[in-house]
Amino acid sequence: MSEPTLLAGLDIGGSKVLAVAVDVSAPDGRPRVVESTRLATGLGPEGVVDTAARALGALTAGLSAGAPHEVFSGVGIGIPGLVDARRGKITHAVNLGVGPGGLALADRLGRRLDLPVVVENDVNAAALGAASHLRLGRIDMAYLSIGTGIAAGIVLDGRLRRGPHGAAGEIGHIPIDPSGPVCGCGQHGCLEALASGSAIAARWTPRPGSELPAGQDLFAAAAHGDAAAKELRDEVAGYLADATRMLALTVDVDLIVLGGGVAEIGEPLRHAVAKALDRQAGSSPFLRGLDLSARLSVVPRDQPVAAIGAALLATEPPALATSDDTPATLDGALTEDLPA
Amino acid sequence: MSEPTLLAGLDIGGSKVLAVAVDVSAPDGRPRVVESTRLATGLGPEGVVDTAARALGALTAGLSAGAPHEVFSGVGIGIPGLVDARRGKITHAVNLGVGPGGLALADRLGRRLDLPVVVENDVNAAALGAASHLRLGRIDMAYLSIGTGIAAGIVLDGRLRRGPHGAAGEIGHIPIDPSGPVCGCGQHGCLEALASGSAIAARWTPRPGSELPAGQDLFAAAAHGDAAAKELRDEVAGYLADATRMLALTVDVDLIVLGGGVAEIGEPLRHAVAKALDRQAGSSPFLRGLDLSARLSVVPRDQPVAAIGAALLATEPPALATSDDTPATLDGALTEDLPA
Repeated sequence: MSEPTLLAGLDIGGSKVLAVAVDVSAPDGRPRVVESTRLATGLGPEGVVDTAARALGALTAGLSAGAPHEVFSGVGIGIPGLVDARRGKITHAVNLGVGPGGLALADRLGRRLDLPVVVENDVNAAALGAASHLRLGRIDMAYLSIGTGIAAGIVLDGRLRRGPHGAAGEIGHIPIDPSGPVCGCGQHGCLEALASGSAIAARWTPRPGSELPAGQDLFAAAAHGDAAAKELRDEVAGYLADATRMLALTVDVDLIVLGGGVAEIGEPLRHAVAKALDRQAGSSPFLRGLDLSARLSVVPRDQPVAAIGAALLATEPPALATSDDTPATLDGALTEDLPA
Repeated sequence: MSEPTLLAGLDIGGSKVLAVAVDVSAPDGRPRVVESTRLATGLGPEGVVDTAARALGALTAGLSAGAPHEVFSGVGIGIPGLVDARRGKITHAVNLGVGPGGLALADRLGRRLDLPVVVENDVNAAALGAASHLRLGRIDMAYLSIGTGIAAGIVLDGRLRRGPHGAAGEIGHIPIDPSGPVCGCGQHGCLEALASGSAIAARWTPRPGSELPAGQDLFAAAAHGDAAAKELRDEVAGYLADATRMLALTVDVDLIVLGGGVAEIGEPLRHAVAKALDRQAGSSPFLRGLDLSARLSVVPRDQPVAAIGAALLATEPPALATSDDTPATLDGALTEDLPA
């Protein structure tokens, strides 16, 4: 048996788990997904450990290999909720049925599989995955995840910034409109209460017959000329522009990548947010100088960035692709603005 | 003549220059100011270079030494405006009469004095100076400068974060109230337009006979029971609490140090902002968990942190004090919350 050369990455969500086998040995440094599988998430501490083990088993079977520890050198897991990455513990994850008692996921899965396991917040994992897909190496970038909630994963100098309290990038709970609606966190007018997938769903009911999630249906209706849809779309885009500006004027990043469920909208989302940024800059030479709309891009729909980023975390330091040559082009990314 | 062992630090403002000679050889690692001088700032590129050279001359004379290059091993300058620290250039500084043509300050002063000179934005320099005074070593902290404008200097892992666009910490131009007043930058309701020294002066006229700046007079009047003063004080403190929360939920820092002209108010300012943070946390378990009010401190009045920080920048890496033992206590700093 040869030395294992693949990494496994799991993106564990409240309803499904996406598992990928990633090869990082390609000469261009870009991680390559060689196998992937998807299954339903079992809830509660036991359910989560079981699901992860089954996902690894399914991946291994897909590769026609013997056992996970024979084919993978490590496993990385991206998971929603509060994660203590240093200890490999989930400390709280409501959507997974893991309460305040927590779950020592890295330890338990690691012993079961005889493999090193690392655990990270899913938004942080996705940020690393997006940076690697873009082959950004040591760049400063933020991954703005717009899903049920809103949070940013921040990569500075090519390294994930977690912050001493694990709160780096938790911009979903920064109020941006004091007169806005109450947020789940107890504050008023938080970004998350105004522009998340849930916030959109609370204000937009998909048209009869539409099978799209609220955000995608909203953008489709707006594209078809629906006046109410256009207004709400532009309002939401304005909030996401606020988030972009906030990231640029606090951590300062070269690139802001839109991701998460709402970013399934794709290029029309990037376009709407870029337009909002340009509109805001219209009255401000200061903002124009920052050229924020040119720094915006959106995750390609076929890229499982959270699972890939999780896999990359299973190496230390993370096996990030570096940008010795020009960065890859993303849908809608203005890569000519990136540093050489 | 022995090897020069001192560093010179200059805090160049629109009206005055503060110059300090700093000894960093103390066994406790804390920088010690051994001489200081203050003179009026000459404006325009020539004026700025001349003033800096005269300040160095006066410092040297105060030390009864021969020439600056015989007593200092390097010079650091903190200066307001846009600074290209890598090239030692001021690219724009309205208050100093330096236009878009810029000023290659490090080069020009360095040749004149035969000394290495580094130039940094004054808020960034002050952030380093505050970190060093607190002997925080590798801590993550933000220095929130509240003066004519508002900006934060951000120190992550003990290193200054400038950002790829030099915009890290430029939170003064993040709008926090869409219905707020127009800001000099062209946007509405920016933090700077609501809570800077100028914003306070626009809304509070010092009481007859008072020689205090508007901010200090406001807090004094509030302390004496003036109802209008109390209301405005609490409103301003609320905005500064917003700034604190924004720093905690973007970069995530252990400590937020209030500085700048308005922070001459001292402990009453820290107390008002801490109270506002606790008030905001009242309705939000999420915010309570962050315990932001405990992370707040204020620069001691007698510490010329910008000049000291500038001096420290004249060594590479900056001669930051490290915290092998317990950090120093600041007025009002809850140092028991700092990591050991």
